[in-house]
Amino acid sequence: MTQTPFAYFAAHRERILAELIEFAAIPSISTDPAHRADIERAAAWVADQIAAAGPFDVQIMPTGRHPVVFGQWLGAVGKPTVLIYGHYDVQPPDPLDKWISPPFTPTIRQDRLYARGISDDKAPIFQAIKAAQAFFATRGALPINVKFMFEGEEEIGSPSLEPFIRAHTDLLAADFVISADGGMWRVEEPSLTVSSRGLAGLEFTLTGAAKDLHSGRHGGAVANPLHALAELIAGLHTPDGRVAVAGFYDDVVELSAEERAAIAALPFDEAAYLAEVGAPALFGEPGYSTLERQWIRPTLEVNGLWGGYQGPGVKTVTPSEAHAKITCRLVPNQDPADIIAKIVRHLEAHVPAGVRLTINPETHAALPYAIPADHFGLVVAGKALEQTFGVRPVVVRMGGTVPVCEVFKRVMGLETVFFSFSTADEDFHAPNEFFRISRLYQGLEGWARYWELLGEGRRQ
Amino acid sequence: MTQTPFAYFAAHRERILAELIEFAAIPSISTDPAHRADIERAAAWVADQIAAAGPFDVQIMPTGRHPVVFGQWLGAVGKPTVLIYGHYDVQPPDPLDKWISPPFTPTIRQDRLYARGISDDKAPIFQAIKAAQAFFATRGALPINVKFMFEGEEEIGSPSLEPFIRAHTDLLAADFVISADGGMWRVEEPSLTVSSRGLAGLEFTLTGAAKDLHSGRHGGAVANPLHALAELIAGLHTPDGRVAVAGFYDDVVELSAEERAAIAALPFDEAAYLAEVGAPALFGEPGYSTLERQWIRPTLEVNGLWGGYQGPGVKTVTPSEAHAKITCRLVPNQDPADIIAKIVRHLEAHVPAGVRLTINPETHAALPYAIPADHFGLVVAGKALEQTFGVRPVVVRMGGTVPVCEVFKRVMGLETVFFSFSTADEDFHAPNEFFRISRLYQGLEGWARYWELLGEGRRQ
Repeated sequence: MTQTPFAYFAAHRERILAELIEFAAIPSISTDPAHRADIERAAAWVADQIAAAGPFDVQIMPTGRHPVVFGQWLGAVGKPTVLIYGHYDVQPPDPLDKWISPPFTPTIRQDRLYARGISDDKAPIFQAIKAAQAFFATRGALPINVKFMFEGEEEIGSPSLEPFIRAHTDLLAADFVISADGGMWRVEEPSLTVSSRGLAGLEFTLTGAAKDLHSGRHGGAVANPLHALAELIAGLHTPDGRVAVAGFYDDVVELSAEERAAIAALPFDEAAYLAEVGAPALFGEPGYSTLERQWIRPTLEVNGLWGGYQGPGVKTVTPSEAHAKITCRLVPNQDPADIIAKIVRHLEAHVPAGVRLTINPETHAALPYAIPADHFGLVVAGKALEQTFGVRPVVVRMGGTVPVCEVFKRVMGLETVFFSFSTADEDFHAPNEFFRISRLYQGLEGWARYWELLGEGRRQ
Repeated sequence: MTQTPFAYFAAHRERILAELIEFAAIPSISTDPAHRADIERAAAWVADQIAAAGPFDVQIMPTGRHPVVFGQWLGAVGKPTVLIYGHYDVQPPDPLDKWISPPFTPTIRQDRLYARGISDDKAPIFQAIKAAQAFFATRGALPINVKFMFEGEEEIGSPSLEPFIRAHTDLLAADFVISADGGMWRVEEPSLTVSSRGLAGLEFTLTGAAKDLHSGRHGGAVANPLHALAELIAGLHTPDGRVAVAGFYDDVVELSAEERAAIAALPFDEAAYLAEVGAPALFGEPGYSTLERQWIRPTLEVNGLWGGYQGPGVKTVTPSEAHAKITCRLVPNQDPADIIAKIVRHLEAHVPAGVRLTINPETHAALPYAIPADHFGLVVAGKALEQTFGVRPVVVRMGGTVPVCEVFKRVMGLETVFFSFSTADEDFHAPNEFFRISRLYQGLEGWARYWELLGEGRRQ
C-alpha cells in the first residue's frame, strides 16, 4: 500500500495491455442482432472489470435494447462526485476485406493496437476502470467519488440513453460528467474539447405532375421538380457561402475576441488540410477561418438530393418528384426547433412555380453544447493533461454533435468534460481502427492525475 | 377481281382481326436475349404476311442484332415509290401484375384489343400489309410502288438502323418514307404530324473533396457539391422558365404567324391537360402556349440528379460528388453538337467555387425534323384521312423525337410522312397497351385511300 498508482501502472503494463486485448476481442456490435450475445458478454466483462477494480456497487441494468453497466464507489466523503460516461459497443467492421488483421483479433503493429472499437470507445473506458484499480490497489480508496455509466447503444444512436437518464436521476447524481468518449484532436499536442455543435434536420419533397412524364411529349409545358429543387436549394445559401434563411444567425453567440484569438493561435495548416480531404479549394462562410467554420459557426448542409433517372445512359423523363435531405450544425444559442421552423418558412416562401412542397422534419435533433471556460472540472482536466504531457493542452472544439452532453445538461443540469485519450486520426468507424499504445499508458497516468487533482480541489 | 379493296376489308373483317391477334401473341421483346427466338418468329411471321399479300420480293435481312424484314413490289410503272417504315419488336411488358389480361394473350374488351406492342407498332404495320393484300386480291396490283422496311430494334434505340440504311440506299430508294410508327394525337379527330423535336444530352459530375466527409467535422469548411449542383442547375434557366444558356435559341426557326394561328386554333383544353398529368399548374417558357412549348420550342430538362445519402433517416455526410443528366429537345434549325457545346461552355463558365466539373456528352443525339407543309406525300395523306374520317385532319407536331425520320433525311434526303392509326392514349410502353378495333378498320381504309390518291397524283 505504499506504492503510487503510477508505480502500479508501471508494474502491470503487460497485464493491463493483455486485458485490453481481451476486451477488444469481443465483437460487441450493437446494430447487429446476431451479436446480441457478444453485447451481453462485453457488458459482463466490463462489470467484472469494475468489480475487480475495487469495492464498487456494480449493476448491469437492462434498457429497451442493450444494457447499461453501472458501478459506483462513494467513499470519498466531502469530495466531488463524477459520473464517467462511455460505451462498450462498437461499429460493424465492414468492409472486412479492407482490414489488414481481422477486426476482432487485436493485433499490435509498432505503437498501434488494431481492433474494431479499440479507439471508440473500449480503450478510453478501460483506462478509467484501470485508474480506479490502481488507486484501490495502492491507496485502498479513490480520491473522489466515482460513478461509471457505460452504455451499449452509442453506435446505434443511443435510443435508450435519455429514458435511462430520466429514470435514474438520483442514481446518476454527480457534480459533473466526464465523457471517456471523445478524443484528442491531433496526436501532436494534448487538447481539451470545450464545445460541440448541435443538429437539426429535415427532408423535403417537391412534386410536379402526379406521375413521371415523357420529356418529349410534356417537356417544357409543366414544371420539372428537379429544376425547382435546384432553384430552392441554391437559394438556401448566398453565392459566397452564407446561409440565406431569414433569422438563421439571429441567436448565434459570437465568440469573444480572446476566444477567436485562441483559435487563430492554434497550429493549423490549411494546405495540409486541403490535401487530407482532397478538395480543390477551401470554401465557407466569409469572415471566418476554416477552424471557425468547423467549430463555432452554424451550417446548413444538403446531405442528399435525388430525383429522376440515375442509371446508365439516357432516360428522357420529366420526373414527378425531387427530394432533398438537409441537416444543420448548430452553435450556442441556436435551438433546433426554431431553426427547423425558420427553414420551413424559407422553403414555403420560395417554392418555385408549378410544384408542391412536402416537408418531413427529422426528430433527430440535438442542442449545441459548450462547457463554461471556467468550469472546475474543465480547469482541473487541463492541469492533469499539463502534468501528464508536460505542455498545456490546447483548447479545441468539435464540429460534430455529441448528444450525450446535451442530454445530461438538459435533463440533469450537468456539464460534461471530454476526457479521452483516443485521437481523431485513429480510423474509428473505418477499417483498421487502432489505438496508440503510448496513449494507453499516458491515459492511465492522465486519469490518475485528474482524480488526484479533483480530490485536492474544493467540492464544486 | 371486280371487288374494291374496301369491299375486301368488309368481307374479311374477322380473319384480319384473327391474324392481328396471332401477330400480337408473339412476345417479340427486342431488349431481352431470352426472347431472341420470338424476335425471329415475329420477323418470319411478318415476312410470310407480306409474301401472302401479293407478289412481293421478300427478304429477312440480318443486322448486327435483330433482322430487318424487307419486301418490295415495283410493278406500278411511272407511279410514286414509297418506303413504308415500322417495327415488329415490342417493349418489355413489366410490371406484369398491372396487366388485366396477360400481355401476350391478346384480349378484346369493348372496342379495344389489349396486348403488348399492339399499338406500338404491330397493328399499324399490319394494316399496311393488309392494304396491299386487299389491292392484290381485288385489282391484282398496287396503285403505287411499295417497299416495306420493318425493323426489330426500335424499342432498343434502333442501333442497326443507320448502318442498315447506309448499306442499302439503292434498295431503299423511294420518293418518300411513310412511317407506320407514330400515331394520332387524340381519338377525337384525325391528325397529321408534321414535325418532331431533336435530342441532345449530356451528363456531368461536380466533385468537391476526394471522399465523402463527415458533415460535423468538415461541414462549412469545404464546398458541398450538392449546393454547387443546385446553383449550377438553377442557373440553366431564368426563374420564369427560359433557357439561360447563351446562344441556346440562336438558330431556332420561329414559326410563321399562320402556323402559330393553326396551333392556337386546335381544340386543346388546358384544364383537362392539367388534370391528365396531375400537375398543380402549367409552367414553361413565357410567350408561348402549352402546345407551342411542347411542339415548337426547344427545352433543356434535367432528367435526373443525385448525390449524397438517399436512404431512410439521417446520414450527416458532405458528399464528394453530385451528378446530373440533362437532355434538350431541339427544334429546326438547332444542331445537337452545337447545343451541347453551348451548354458545356455555360457549365464551365459557371462552376461554383470549390468544386471540379467533369462532363460526359451523350452520343444519343438526333436532329429535329419537320416536313415541308406542301410536301406531296403529306398533302395526299391529308386528303386520304379526310376521305376516311369525313373531316379534315388537324395538323399537329410531336414533342418527342423520332430518330428514323432524321436518319432518312440525313442519309438519303428523304422526307417522312407519319401515317399511323394508333392513338397517343393507347398506353404503349405501359401496362394494358391497347389498340382500338374501330381504328383497325378505319386504318385499312385509310391506307387504301392513301395509296389510291398517290397513284392518281403526279410522280413527285
